[in-house]
This record gives sequence, C-alpha cells and structure tokens, in this order.
Amino acid sequence: MKQSQLFTKTRKEAPKDEVSKNAQLLIQAGFVYKEMAGVYSYLPLGLRVLNKINDIIRKEMNKIGGQELFLTNLQDPKIWEATGRWSDDVVDNWFKTKLKSGTELGLGFTHEEPITRMMKDHISSFRDLPLSAYQIQTKFRNESRAKSGIMRGREFLMKDLYSFSRDEKEHDDFYNKAIIAYTNIFSKVGLGEKTHVTFASGGTFSKYSHEFQTVSDAGEDIIYIAPNGLAVNEEVFNDEVLKDLGFEKKDLKKEKSIEVGNIFSLGTKFSEAFDLTFSDEKGENKFVVMGCYGIGPGRLMGTVVEALSDERGIIWPETIAPFKVHLLSLGANEETEKIYNQLQQNGIEVLFDDRDKKAGDKFADSDLIGIPYRVVVSEKSLSQGGVELKKRAENDGKIFSINDLIELLK
Amino acid sequence: MKQSQLFTKTRKEAPKDEVSKNAQLLIQAGFVYKEMAGVYSYLPLGLRVLNKINDIIRKEMNKIGGQELFLTNLQDPKIWEATGRWSDDVVDNWFKTKLKSGTELGLGFTHEEPITRMMKDHISSFRDLPLSAYQIQTKFRNESRAKSGIMRGREFLMKDLYSFSRDEKEHDDFYNKAIIAYTNIFSKVGLGEKTHVTFASGGTFSKYSHEFQTVSDAGEDIIYIAPNGLAVNEEVFNDEVLKDLGFEKKDLKKEKSIEVGNIFSLGTKFSEAFDLTFSDEKGENKFVVMGCYGIGPGRLMGTVVEALSDERGIIWPETIAPFKVHLLSLGANEETEKIYNQLQQNGIEVLFDDRDKKAGDKFADSDLIGIPYRVVVSEKSLSQGGVELKKRAENDGKIFSINDLIELLK
Repeated sequence: MKQSQLFTKTRKEAPKDEVSKNAQLLIQAGFVYKEMAGVYSYLPLGLRVLNKINDIIRKEMNKIGGQELFLTNLQDPKIWEATGRWSDDVVDNWFKTKLKSGTELGLGFTHEEPITRMMKDHISSFRDLPLSAYQIQTKFRNESRAKSGIMRGREFLMKDLYSFSRDEKEHDDFYNKAIIAYTNIFSKVGLGEKTHVTFASGGTFSKYSHEFQTVSDAGEDIIYIAPNGLAVNEEVFNDEVLKDLGFEKKDLKKEKSIEVGNIFSLGTKFSEAFDLTFSDEKGENKFVVMGCYGIGPGRLMGTVVEALSDERGIIWPETIAPFKVHLLSLGANEETEKIYNQLQQNGIEVLFDDRDKKAGDKFADSDLIGIPYRVVVSEKSLSQGGVELKKRAENDGKIFSINDLIELLK
Repeated sequence: MKQSQLFTKTRKEAPKDEVSKNAQLLIQAGFVYKEMAGVYSYLPLGLRVLNKINDIIRKEMNKIGGQELFLTNLQDPKIWEATGRWSDDVVDNWFKTKLKSGTELGLGFTHEEPITRMMKDHISSFRDLPLSAYQIQTKFRNESRAKSGIMRGREFLMKDLYSFSRDEKEHDDFYNKAIIAYTNIFSKVGLGEKTHVTFASGGTFSKYSHEFQTVSDAGEDIIYIAPNGLAVNEEVFNDEVLKDLGFEKKDLKKEKSIEVGNIFSLGTKFSEAFDLTFSDEKGENKFVVMGCYGIGPGRLMGTVVEALSDERGIIWPETIAPFKVHLLSLGANEETEKIYNQLQQNGIEVLFDDRDKKAGDKFADSDLIGIPYRVVVSEKSLSQGGVELKKRAENDGKIFSINDLIELLK
C-alpha cells in the first residue's frame, strides 16, 4: 500500500489523556482511535494487526478440532437466571439494555450460557462427543476504571472456545491439547519467552485453572516463576499450593505480568443448569463435562506493544506486523516505485512511503509504526549498488542489491 | 469436513415459531440459531456462508479504494447530540445502556457520527481527499417487530462505507463507482437478475438516494420496474418523478422486493455538524462532501434463501455455498474416503457425509443444506464406473469417473 493513500496520519506527540504505553503508541501511530475511556476503534493499520492475530488463533483452534461460530451480543435474561448470573449483585460488570416492550436484555460479557443452551439441540448421544466450538466476537464489560488502553476495554474482541466432553478423562485430554495450542499462539505472536503457564484459582470442579501470564511492568497481576518456566499466581501463593506443585519458595522469581489467556474446567456446572445430557454406551443419561478457553486478541496486541517497543515506537514481530516491509523513498520515487512493484509481485506485504516529506519525518514515522524491515531508497543507496535494509529492532542497516533484497524477504 | 464431526444436526421439521422462510430453512438446516426474536447466532455452516459474502463485499470495496476499519458498538452521546440524533423522539430504534457512573451510552445503529469525528484527525488538506473507509460490524436496532428472520434483526452485521470528497463532482464520481461495485456484489452472490437499482427518496442534499431491491414475495417494499431494469420505489412513485426519470407508467412492472443495499449522498450535513473541513488549493476552508453506502451481509444471506430455495430446502449459489461439494457415501465409506482426500488435495471444499444413516435421510439432509454439487458413492455407482454427480438445482444425476469428476469440479 502507498502511504500517501493510507488515510491515517501519525501524531507528533502521544495523546495526553492516556496513561498506558499501548494506547499512547497505538494512537500516536494511527492504529487505534479512542471513542471514550475503554472503547477503541481499530483503524486500517490496527485492523491488519488484529486480523493477523485472529488468524493465528483461528489456525490453532481449528487444529485441535474447534468449530467456529458467531454468537450474539444481545442476551436473553432467562438463560442467565438459570445459572444465577443475571443479578448485578452476582455479576458486577453487566451492560444492560431494554427492548421497546420494556424487557431487559444483557450485552454478553462471556458466552457459557447461550452456548450451553444451544448445544441442547445438537448433543444427545455419546456419539456426539467430544466437541468444541469457538468464536471471535465482541464482549462488553462495564469496568469501573478503564486506564489500560486496549488491554482492558469496556468493549473488546475475545476468542472464547467451549469444550464438551463425556467425562473428566476426555475433558483432561482436550484441556491439555488446549494448553499446547495456547503456548503455540503466544509463541507465534512473539511473546513466547515472556509468557508463563500459571496456576491460578480453580472452582468447584477443579483444583486450579490455568492462566497464561506475560511478564511486563504494565501488568495488573503478580506471578512467581519457577525454574522450569511454570508459574503460580499470587492469588493462590501459599505453602500448601507450593508443596502441591513441588515448588521451592526460594527458587521462585516474583514478576508483574499481564494475563493474556486463561483456561478453565467447568465440570458439569453449566450442563446441570441447562440439563445438557447425553446417553452413554449403556443408555444411561449423564451430564456433559465442559471447559472454557479465552484469549483477547486486542489485549494480546496491547501486550505486544507493552512488551516489544522502545523509546522511538513499536517493534512488531513479523508474524503480526501490519506490513512486512516499510519502503521509504528519499527523493527517488521513480526507482522506488519499481522496487515496490517487484516486492509486491513476490508476495511481500509493503507499505511504500511515497509522501513528500523530509527524511527525518519518514524515519521517525517508520520507527513509530514499527514495521519489521525498513528499506530506504535514495540517490546515495542507489549509487552504492541498491537499497539500505535495516531491521526495526537493530541500529545499523546494510546495502543490498534489489535481487538479494527480494531473495532475503520473500 | 466430515459430517460426523460437524456438531450441528438438521431438524426433521421447520421451527414452529418462525414465519419467514429464511429463518425456517436456516434453522432447520443448522445454519443459524435463534437466541430470541430478531437475534440469531451463526453456526459453523452459517458462518461459512456469511464469511464468503463478506469476502465478496470486501473485495469490491477494496477495488474502489475503500480502507477497512472497525468502529465500536458503544456510542458516545456527545457526538449524536451534535447532529440531533441522540433523542429517542428523533431516532426511535436506539438501544441504550449505562456506565456505572450513570452516563448513558448508545449501541450503534449506524456510524456516520463516529467516523466523521474520527476523520477530523486525518483530513485537513485537499491532498487528503478523496478517501473512503468501511467496516463490517454489528449494528443494533430496537425494532418493534422482528418476524423476518435474519432479514431484519435487532442485532445484525452491516457493511457500511463512508466516502469523503472535495466537491459534488468528486463525490458523484465515487458514488457511480459504488453503484458498479454494488451491482457486482449482487451479481456475484447469485441475485444479479432479480436485483434492481432503484430510485428512492433523497435528502436535503440530493434528489434521490439509490436502493438495490431484489424481487421477492418476502419483501417489505414495493418497486416499479422499467424495461431498462431500473426501478422506482413506491415511496417516490408519482407523476413528477416518473417524468423526471423518463419512465412511462404503462411500461412499469409492480413487484414486492427486499432492500439489499442502499447508497446515499450526505452532502455536508455531517461535516458541518463536526466542522470537518479541508483547505483547498487556494487555501480556502471548505466542508467535506460525504456519502454512505450500506449492505447487510446477513440480510443478503436471508434474501438468497428466500429467492433461491425450493420445497426441499436451500439452493446456494456456488460463490457463497458453505462447501462446493456434498459427498455422500451410501455404504461405501472406504472408497468415498479416498475420493474425499482426492477432492481436498485438489483444493475443492467438500462436506463428506460419512454418517451411519439411511440413504433417504442423507438425500433429504443434502437437499435441505443445499450444497451446489451432490456426489453419491455407492456399490451401484462404483459398478457403473464411478460416482453419481447431481446439481442441487437439477433433478437428474450422471455417472462420472473420479478423474473426470475432479477435472469438472476443480
């Protein structure tokens, strides 16, 4: 894409009403727009990143057998009354609205209730299980405070998968596959080394739940990391749990962290509430065993910005960058146009800065936007035999011929 | 995909609480799930169709220069007060909700206000124009009645594009390109012959708006079609308009129709409300000229079902079918599995009915689901040299060798 055509502009300065680094950088660079506190629109560059994150998540969910669907935002009170979660005393972050008839409706903050009811149409026999289904859909949460940019929004995208199994054993098998899928996702978006599988509080049906926590000063959580890479959340950090997990207190490292994903065994809590049963091999009726598995693609994008930026701007990992190459023409638009076409013909995603701007402004914008490879074309580079290639995360560039550049990037 | 793995099941009968054909068939075949009146979830088969429609729309919008973004559902009252559209007396289908602080928020029923405010960050000079941006995003409308299935929902997906131009002439150029793009879309989803560019009421800034109306008994509109294929909406059907358009009353054909798209010149109504200006070549400040362009992908899906189904079920056009081929094994699972693999290796999307069901049930499900090509593998077909291929829309099948089948379908 030509940058002269991209309608968004960068700002000289970060917005003054934001305290989080992710919102400051993403707004300054033109990835998101703040509609109000905790409510952000995604501009073209931001949507490109978000879609790449969604595709990475989708692939991993499909690999473990997840079937994609798309549930609704508007929620029927009846199904939430069935689990006791309709009352604002029990769930304190509902957004509610009303039909013209006066009937109150909710805006989904999660989707266990609707998916459990819906599955009554499709699950009746042991032959129908196991199965899992997921969506990438907007959630609404009426947060009291919303100062963490796109990391904790009042309206945000969520990938939520729900699993349905015959028994605990079958559930555990899927749950373990989900841990691997999640680990793959965080590794693919560039947060692998900083992200820890973390034991957190369970529920009626399981001792622990599992969180995926990314070490960052912007985090709202505290975790204790063991030498084997596993961690324990402060909320369950006590002698009994440490003993149970075989962790030695003296070996653990305390860190602030961002919860980028969580998975939870639900047992038969929801299937009992909705009478979601199946008849087993012997013809006996049993409750379906469920699990839920969440990742916020927007929060993940915010976490990448928090974890992987420097004083000049964002540093996107190649897998989720809006473009692979930022091609800057310094007074050599004609030659650069040719290179732009060649890169595109080789299937390389390029943002071509063809604007009539000073070199310094182009460099500053390029650092701010954070595309992984910067290619500069100037009279000087051409006289040296080609173009200057520099990685965003590195300081020094090197001259490459056009052919070598394409070989390297494609 | 193997049908034994697809979690949705068809129903023997259409749901009794639905009066529209699209909802009856889509629920019976397992494409959508009714959460409540006017609120439908998309199940895996339905989401596949919806995504194909979205991709067709996206391609046409990109072709005319539209840049994709993703605005929010939660709406800031301030910007709606600026245009006088916050009051329930002016807009009678708002869903509203509240922050914990008590501040009222809206749920977007359209997005002129937020996009106009946002563009103030990005438009200041004539060099920034023209531009257009679009999203595919959920809209909420508090309809009094919702009996038309996915054709008129209280929550539904909408593609809305907004154009920003320097003057009327530049606006008209884009507007005409949008008409062609829309015509391409309706033709690609299989509604080309039944869909008419229709003159409808304009506003302060233009004599007419343009609707795209698909002839169907399920329609809520009445149009009068001229011999040249253009039509006029009943709402502006009078002698003056007919004269203006050069239509002869006696040549017009009256039909019920579904509005599948509409485009609208907004003039400077919104740019004046938000003071969205640009400085022109002479340094003079001018208001930006805007237009808006809507298509509901879900409504389009519902319209296809209304327009292209028979007494046995849905007949999807190939371009938006959930799969291209429905492969039915009648007691020949081993051979069929091989064919399934071959088709997939050739990039053909196949739903393989590997279930342990009677032939009659498989045929009935296949007709109901409506995949364009049905391929039956049985002892009989194999003894005749291959498989039986039948188009959903035709009555008789024909035997093909496996190689010929793949050549034909790939």
